[in-house]
Amino acid sequence: MSSRPHSSPGDTQPGVSFADASCPLPISDHQEIVLGHGSGGKLTHQLIERIIAPHFSNSLLDPLHDGATLPIGGQRLAFSTDSFVVKPVFFPGGDIGKLAVHGTVNDIAMCGAQPLYLSVAFILEEGFLMKDFFRIVQSMKEAAAEAGVKLVTGDTKVVDRGKGDQIFINTSGVGLIRKGVDIHPRRAEPGDQIIVSGEIATHGIAIMSVRDGLEFETEVLSDTAPLNGLVDVILDVCPGVHVLRDPTRGGLTSALNEIAVQARAGVLLREDTLPINEQVRGACEILGLDPLHVANEGKLIAIVPPGHAETVLSAMRHHPLGRQSAIIGEIVANHPGMVTMRTRVGGERVVDMLSGEQLPRIC
Amino acid sequence: MSSRPHSSPGDTQPGVSFADASCPLPISDHQEIVLGHGSGGKLTHQLIERIIAPHFSNSLLDPLHDGATLPIGGQRLAFSTDSFVVKPVFFPGGDIGKLAVHGTVNDIAMCGAQPLYLSVAFILEEGFLMKDFFRIVQSMKEAAAEAGVKLVTGDTKVVDRGKGDQIFINTSGVGLIRKGVDIHPRRAEPGDQIIVSGEIATHGIAIMSVRDGLEFETEVLSDTAPLNGLVDVILDVCPGVHVLRDPTRGGLTSALNEIAVQARAGVLLREDTLPINEQVRGACEILGLDPLHVANEGKLIAIVPPGHAETVLSAMRHHPLGRQSAIIGEIVANHPGMVTMRTRVGGERVVDMLSGEQLPRIC
Repeated sequence: MSSRPHSSPGDTQPGVSFADASCPLPISDHQEIVLGHGSGGKLTHQLIERIIAPHFSNSLLDPLHDGATLPIGGQRLAFSTDSFVVKPVFFPGGDIGKLAVHGTVNDIAMCGAQPLYLSVAFILEEGFLMKDFFRIVQSMKEAAAEAGVKLVTGDTKVVDRGKGDQIFINTSGVGLIRKGVDIHPRRAEPGDQIIVSGEIATHGIAIMSVRDGLEFETEVLSDTAPLNGLVDVILDVCPGVHVLRDPTRGGLTSALNEIAVQARAGVLLREDTLPINEQVRGACEILGLDPLHVANEGKLIAIVPPGHAETVLSAMRHHPLGRQSAIIGEIVANHPGMVTMRTRVGGERVVDMLSGEQLPRIC
Repeated sequence: MSSRPHSSPGDTQPGVSFADASCPLPISDHQEIVLGHGSGGKLTHQLIERIIAPHFSNSLLDPLHDGATLPIGGQRLAFSTDSFVVKPVFFPGGDIGKLAVHGTVNDIAMCGAQPLYLSVAFILEEGFLMKDFFRIVQSMKEAAAEAGVKLVTGDTKVVDRGKGDQIFINTSGVGLIRKGVDIHPRRAEPGDQIIVSGEIATHGIAIMSVRDGLEFETEVLSDTAPLNGLVDVILDVCPGVHVLRDPTRGGLTSALNEIAVQARAGVLLREDTLPINEQVRGACEILGLDPLHVANEGKLIAIVPPGHAETVLSAMRHHPLGRQSAIIGEIVANHPGMVTMRTRVGGERVVDMLSGEQLPRIC
């Protein structure tokens, strides 16, 4: 979290100018919000580090982790929130409702917690079709049942036509962290092995296929899925797992760069081990996208201490959502804070975060 | 919660029509979302009861309460969510950020809980001014500090220009419910006294004054405020309080009608006891609004067992946010599920919920 100075409370009085308020963001960068601020890449990080984090600063907030860990009554609770603005709201393999349930379930699971309860808040645009709303709510019900969570409280707001986009959904959730489990990006250490639970870049390409009218031999479906069951399997065989992360917005790259920075260690990937569907790979080539930047949904990265990788991999492969799990790299002492990849042809290249927006409204 | 039948999970498969899915909302009512579905009045209730609640059905969900009560590790946690879409985002006495913190703090306080942690999720429109975003985030920081809650986790999404409206904010929160306290609308009983913590209809008129360019001798400021301190005072002197509720969207009327229905009892108000600012009363007369329908923010209703009203009232009046507290009516055995008011001229009239939308995007 940034420790740069921020202005005093009095500065927010109406009439005080932006300059007076000594906003720590260089105004010359961006005076307005741009789509890249929602990319999950560098601009999102700048916004969080310079504007949001200094105001939310406290020992529990960790803007680069998937959720907060709260001590309540002798227990450790995981607490997380996500808003969903995906476009279109129905896409191959899912819809915004399913995504909204899975998204928060997964963020809580990535804290090593069993997700228990979700809140759901809708922002509906005037004119949104009731039958579509009904379909989405029904889809959320099924997704919650599948993940074993309860939808316990909610809110519904309506905005005038042209001031929203059909439906936005926020889900927040709480879960109980397993005793003895301590998952945090900081815990990644040189020697740790990096496992991914299956083929990457699928969600992003599924969404893009609808938007751009791409045609495949077989339809590419979003990989959206609840990962808490797979996390249980991992924790059962390796309660000492160092890091869990679902690489959604910003793709594998953003997730691994965040971890490298927090852990002050390097990440070394091996290109030939990255699981990727042939159609997805082809689509990325045609569209000029790096699959490492493309969003995933029902996938996770597990970073495990040396000596545990094969056990965890084997357990993951026995789970329906982990059949194509693979060890894709390791944590290294070299180049701390940086992700590199050994390419198929034997070179090594830096794998950096996206600086702008590749595909807006992917989740 | 509605017990009407709803369709089976299989019905949400793509391609299944709305009719096939046997959606319990009579299609002839509304095939599209209208602004009234966000009013907090009858249409909101219909939407919740017919579309949302049947899908969220479980023993913890209580769509007519301000938050859910969750049993976790031998404690009772309150959990609540709200999205804020108020327009304009800056208004006399507050802004969307302050409102978003107070809103969830208050919903949790109304469960008899001490609010502890909030999540914050932003949906920003491309082009939103960075300086305004900065001001709002700063305002949230101050509001959180004042209420004694921590902002612990967050999310930021960006939507393309014209697909949002500057900024929408969701806050969700958790708090610990006081031991021995059991607050629920169902607990209201004939003989209970109804106390309101101050002047009503202020927030709605403050917002409307900006939108419609109304001018007052002295500016009407929104009453947005964190109510957890006032709730502490109430619980200290009367841990057996039956109901707490902050009458926001839909005004005093919606809150009291909901309580009357849940408690299967009647509510009788006395018009001459309702605290209301003279300028607000005048504005309501000019605009043709019933102040009972106009939104409040930093106000609460306490429904207390007979014999406790004077003690609670006195304690409330010693708190800065309760100086103008007043007993405004009582729970009666007559006309269960209905709210009536004894008017100044001695008659009695039914005080019904709004059926449409009076003032969209008030919070």
